[in-house]
Amino acid sequence: MPQGSADELAPPDRLLLGPGPCNIHPQIVRALTAPLLGYLDADFIDILDDISEMLRQLYGTKDGLAIAVSGSGMAGMEAGLSNLLEPGDTIVIGVNGFFAERMVDIASRQGATPATVQAEWGHLVDPSDVAKELAKHRKVKALAVVHAETSTGVLQPLEDLAQLARSHDALFLVDAVTSLGGSPLVFDQTGIDFCYSAGQKCIGTPPGVAPIAVSPKALRAIESRNVKPHSWYFDISLLRQYWQGATRVYHHTPPNVLLYSLREALRLLLKEGLEERWERHRRHGHALRVGLEALGLRLVVPEEHCIHHLTLVEVPDGVDDAKVRGALRREYNIEIGGGLGKFRGKVWRIGLMGYSSSPASLLFLLSALETLLPRFGFEVSPGAGVAAAGRSLVWASQ
Amino acid sequence: MPQGSADELAPPDRLLLGPGPCNIHPQIVRALTAPLLGYLDADFIDILDDISEMLRQLYGTKDGLAIAVSGSGMAGMEAGLSNLLEPGDTIVIGVNGFFAERMVDIASRQGATPATVQAEWGHLVDPSDVAKELAKHRKVKALAVVHAETSTGVLQPLEDLAQLARSHDALFLVDAVTSLGGSPLVFDQTGIDFCYSAGQKCIGTPPGVAPIAVSPKALRAIESRNVKPHSWYFDISLLRQYWQGATRVYHHTPPNVLLYSLREALRLLLKEGLEERWERHRRHGHALRVGLEALGLRLVVPEEHCIHHLTLVEVPDGVDDAKVRGALRREYNIEIGGGLGKFRGKVWRIGLMGYSSSPASLLFLLSALETLLPRFGFEVSPGAGVAAAGRSLVWASQ
Repeated sequence: MPQGSADELAPPDRLLLGPGPCNIHPQIVRALTAPLLGYLDADFIDILDDISEMLRQLYGTKDGLAIAVSGSGMAGMEAGLSNLLEPGDTIVIGVNGFFAERMVDIASRQGATPATVQAEWGHLVDPSDVAKELAKHRKVKALAVVHAETSTGVLQPLEDLAQLARSHDALFLVDAVTSLGGSPLVFDQTGIDFCYSAGQKCIGTPPGVAPIAVSPKALRAIESRNVKPHSWYFDISLLRQYWQGATRVYHHTPPNVLLYSLREALRLLLKEGLEERWERHRRHGHALRVGLEALGLRLVVPEEHCIHHLTLVEVPDGVDDAKVRGALRREYNIEIGGGLGKFRGKVWRIGLMGYSSSPASLLFLLSALETLLPRFGFEVSPGAGVAAAGRSLVWASQ
Repeated sequence: MPQGSADELAPPDRLLLGPGPCNIHPQIVRALTAPLLGYLDADFIDILDDISEMLRQLYGTKDGLAIAVSGSGMAGMEAGLSNLLEPGDTIVIGVNGFFAERMVDIASRQGATPATVQAEWGHLVDPSDVAKELAKHRKVKALAVVHAETSTGVLQPLEDLAQLARSHDALFLVDAVTSLGGSPLVFDQTGIDFCYSAGQKCIGTPPGVAPIAVSPKALRAIESRNVKPHSWYFDISLLRQYWQGATRVYHHTPPNVLLYSLREALRLLLKEGLEERWERHRRHGHALRVGLEALGLRLVVPEEHCIHHLTLVEVPDGVDDAKVRGALRREYNIEIGGGLGKFRGKVWRIGLMGYSSSPASLLFLLSALETLLPRFGFEVSPGAGVAAAGRSLVWASQ
């Protein structure tokens, strides 16, 4: 760009089937354009209250604090670890992917000591390994795990781990960035103490808001810290005075338009029904998996442990990962995700989340893959993917 | 709200004349609705590059890093302090208002030792006091000051302080949340090392993006830290790999739509011309001040030290602060700001920033005050405010 101003903004209208962001429902797009309000305007405070109330329903919590942190899912992660952990605390972290490794980094930056329980990428964290690790420490402040590991496509069951956390009097912290709103998760019933997510996956907002839920027990721990969190921006005891206080105390100027979109997204989500939405994400994910297998592609995670709405598929031997994704993007205007970390170049990550979770999306993608893959050296039987996925959708609707 | 989803979002269309957020230019609102892209999409990276290039022009820096942090102005503050400071470092902070006090808190949370140079609220920080404080310490890592202190309406001259920082080999950190794009500030020429701002003041975006500029010297300090910053989310050496790296490395999912709005806002700003924009903010601010004085109201800060686009006016004796602001809001749909901290209940803060900086805004506000104030016990001479402001605008246009 030469000195001076750029041309007018004109991004292409891509079908977003990667790990997020996803496409946005037109009504949610419209909410972005609603008039701004000051951060202490009574009409704006009403909007915050609506969001809290609907987030409590989405999370399934009666007494927990439910608010939106100003940032991506990673802001939710930083909020959780920086508020729950104090220097010198021990946290046990189940590590079976890229995002759990991030937790280890961020926990260390708080001056805490992370003790990791490793599992292979693409596999579950084993509760018996976690039990062994917990038993090694005199006092564990928190146990943390990723519910839906976006780097591997694995959905981690939470109940046994919650039980272990409880029995060791540790706070149970769950990363639900990719699962909340798409996969079953019930905060109170499972016994979670801190959970964070992100708007741009199954909830359906543009990126930039991170809904969190905090149990009364975790709030007590936060309010009785010995030292302030290193992070002021994500300090929950201060954020709480803004979101919940009898007198609202200014903290930082929140991202109005993203909160507007969150309110609208939550409204549409609850109107659809939470269980209906989980089922939609499962149904479309299942049809995609069936279609991909009918094309002869291999899935990374078996059905019983998979995130239904984020499917990892192996890049076939001899096929160039980047070239296929580039052709999908250029010729079909479709984005799918590449592999992260040790899966780089080896897998594709296909998300069907929020508004992108639809028969149109998955059938179009399968059609595009059927047409493209032979050109890149991988033969498929014509029509097989679409036919198999179509049958799965028909069965599901009967 | 009962269990279930809320009504459709319908915030009122308020004229925003507080300390921010401000009203948004319709073309910038439209940019919010542009299609989303993945965070590593080549078309999205082009948008980041455009933003960086235009931010360098806005800041007036040739070799500095110019990017947008995902958050409000306070995220910019946290990014600055958490990246420049390591545990044990000393930072000298000029404190003459609410936001400088925040810097002290955030610096402490990084494990640094803040040494403060106090000045009365509504007054300048005295460079000779800063010189004395700097001389007390063997090694000072940074000198920090707020350029436009939103809590007091004071604009702090930067040149002498920059010179002092240089002569003590300290990094010079400047809060330009309220000044950037509205008041003259030239990063390289003044010799600033770290500067942060916020989109929702004079730049003209909705809240949620914090443009920062970092000098090569500050970048070297960041890259040669002994320990990682406590904040991962705002870690500039990681953010830099995403915004600038030859291979872009995923850090967090940035807030697409807010970055779209920033790109559009910067485009319009540079099209208007930076100096023309400073002059517009000065001209309208001056007309407002003239009008307020003609109404018999008293300004907090003398002309030579004031932020032209954020005017503090004393709440007259016997007039109820909250009632006047409430009536403005209910009857005229106008927001102005109340006082923060020790100015609570004592001042009104009137912002004419970005798209809100217009003759229409200031004349409407003066008309509304003329009509309202007598009802709350403060007599004004009818028409005096609008007439005086109108004359000032006419003179300025000749």
